[in-house]
Amino acid sequence: MSSSRRDFLKILGGGALALPALNLSSLPMLGQDAADRPLRYCIVGLGRISLNEFMPGVRLSHKSRLTALVSASRAKAEKVAAQYQIDPKNIYSYENFHRIADNPEIDAVYLALPNGMHAEYTVRAAEAGKHVLCEKPMANTPAECEQMIAACRKAGKKLMIGYRCRLEPTNLRAISLIRSGALGKVQIIESSDGFNISPTYTVMGVTRPEWRLDKAMAGGGPMMDVGIYSLQATRYLSGEEPAVISATWSRSKDDPRFRGVEENLVWHTQFPSGVLATCNTSYGSNIGDSARVNGSKGWLSLDPGFYYDGLRLRGHSQTQGNLDYVADNPNPRQFTTEADYFTDCVHKNQEPTINGEEGLRDMKLIAAIYKSCREGGAPQQV
Amino acid sequence: MSSSRRDFLKILGGGALALPALNLSSLPMLGQDAADRPLRYCIVGLGRISLNEFMPGVRLSHKSRLTALVSASRAKAEKVAAQYQIDPKNIYSYENFHRIADNPEIDAVYLALPNGMHAEYTVRAAEAGKHVLCEKPMANTPAECEQMIAACRKAGKKLMIGYRCRLEPTNLRAISLIRSGALGKVQIIESSDGFNISPTYTVMGVTRPEWRLDKAMAGGGPMMDVGIYSLQATRYLSGEEPAVISATWSRSKDDPRFRGVEENLVWHTQFPSGVLATCNTSYGSNIGDSARVNGSKGWLSLDPGFYYDGLRLRGHSQTQGNLDYVADNPNPRQFTTEADYFTDCVHKNQEPTINGEEGLRDMKLIAAIYKSCREGGAPQQV
Repeated sequence: MSSSRRDFLKILGGGALALPALNLSSLPMLGQDAADRPLRYCIVGLGRISLNEFMPGVRLSHKSRLTALVSASRAKAEKVAAQYQIDPKNIYSYENFHRIADNPEIDAVYLALPNGMHAEYTVRAAEAGKHVLCEKPMANTPAECEQMIAACRKAGKKLMIGYRCRLEPTNLRAISLIRSGALGKVQIIESSDGFNISPTYTVMGVTRPEWRLDKAMAGGGPMMDVGIYSLQATRYLSGEEPAVISATWSRSKDDPRFRGVEENLVWHTQFPSGVLATCNTSYGSNIGDSARVNGSKGWLSLDPGFYYDGLRLRGHSQTQGNLDYVADNPNPRQFTTEADYFTDCVHKNQEPTINGEEGLRDMKLIAAIYKSCREGGAPQQV
Repeated sequence: MSSSRRDFLKILGGGALALPALNLSSLPMLGQDAADRPLRYCIVGLGRISLNEFMPGVRLSHKSRLTALVSASRAKAEKVAAQYQIDPKNIYSYENFHRIADNPEIDAVYLALPNGMHAEYTVRAAEAGKHVLCEKPMANTPAECEQMIAACRKAGKKLMIGYRCRLEPTNLRAISLIRSGALGKVQIIESSDGFNISPTYTVMGVTRPEWRLDKAMAGGGPMMDVGIYSLQATRYLSGEEPAVISATWSRSKDDPRFRGVEENLVWHTQFPSGVLATCNTSYGSNIGDSARVNGSKGWLSLDPGFYYDGLRLRGHSQTQGNLDYVADNPNPRQFTTEADYFTDCVHKNQEPTINGEEGLRDMKLIAAIYKSCREGGAPQQV
């Protein structure tokens, strides 16, 4: 997009497109070509990640736009709609969600529901003819992931999983350095992600029990929620797919938070080239979010490595010297990038690298990790 | 020891005790009571740890002394003896080692031989009536450890393993903080120790192939040599004994260093209370030496955690605030402390906390770790 188009869109703002006095189709950036038009998102689920991250992220974008909302609370949705200049006629409930099919102001949905609802709403969105950007983890089970992939394929719609670290400059720099040989032969990858979870959470003044501690809603504990970052990282940092995974878990039996899901989980992975990974995740301790890659000729760490901002790469290479790097990427820019990447994939009819198959891959590995835990740590060929 | 005695010993220095004009037995700190006399060590093996660490460490001591040497090279031993003012009559070869039995100027041996020789020389030293301070790892196998324990018990001699971190202020501070509840419930312990090993090493101008890469001499690769620090740390930091261990290893098949021993190894441990530990070790990457303990109310890290000096504790506790700590403990003071602790154990007839049984415990765990690796990562009840 040219800078003059961008500037014009800035002046118009989100609401300007509804102005009746303008012949919008005659404007160069709003012509017949859909690729010239911002992708219009319907936010499904007005929880923490939508309200605090994704929506503020899209607000910074010139090629993605928020045009509709789905929420169980009409009052809440109206407040959010007003804040984002979203037309109240574009507010849906979960009951009338299927009617998004009839709304030409919606191109795609951003699904930020509890994990256990991802499959149902992805299928419904695809059936309504909308592209789907679904938060991680993709679903509760590999079978659900397969349903989601099939539904989007059948509908001819794109499906992307919200693996924002795959688009994030610090993580990309780490991948690039490793592929350039800066660390020599990669030997051992370590990664951690976890925090001490509160039993409740509050959104817009309403406090609820934490759904991430509900097995049916979350599919599991910290492994599903944050361990998945480490799992992904071991794959994209090594550039390989795991061969064997072993895992073990624990929970405080007297802690009511962990009646249904694990509290702590550690696993290690053998990759085909001989790279070994060792990871841990927790809902019982603020262990941070980090990764470290140890190679024959150097090392690098991402610490923090997966958070919304403040990511920091440190390292040293025998061949390239100091590897330290900090991106100028304040929150919520990662979400702007994520939305815009999906927008581009839709407009250019390109498959996202972080598509449904990629989400399914992690879900199969997580299923293997949980199976190993249930089997007392038995190694799983994956 | 009173400060006046200490000051007097300082003035005397190591060599002064040999002055014939002094009636040493009449001096209060050198009376008939053996407990008043420095423990006299015979160094067995003039390799890196003896020459660079232990002997300089003992030189700083007032209650431990170097009085004899065992080496395959008479010329080398004579040079070292001159440097440390050791009487050349107290130089032994491995062939005439048994004659230390007849030397009343030797109370104990410091065994710093390749791991595969620890058992033989511990048994021979005990049979010669000497106490044994043996470097870690205790031996190549649990069976060898049991022979060593039996021989020292039969001879009525003390046996200690050189687990200097168990006497080191930064590690002791970490243990104390954890026991005080500063971190709340301990959840996950991470530890790493490894380096990119050279195929050869040089001591006093002579370069030899690295014995630590020879399976018969070393018993294994980095797990035996440095992984053992992490293994120990998970035990002393958690204050528990492992229940289940799983491990996996890898090696570069085209790297001649790793024909006989593993290059990389990762393992995880489940402790009875639910504490999980995840560790890694390498001879193919400079992964440093560190430990991190994640609890429900705080965390602490030791990084570096096991080296000869520069150890650093960092951490934060919800109840105790900042936990940062750096000990004033320059190299080779850890070795002074280690020698003097053994001296005290001998003089007070106290069993060292880091005795043969403690070494055996680790060796059994290492055997289980290697068994898990050979069995493709199968969990081992330990």
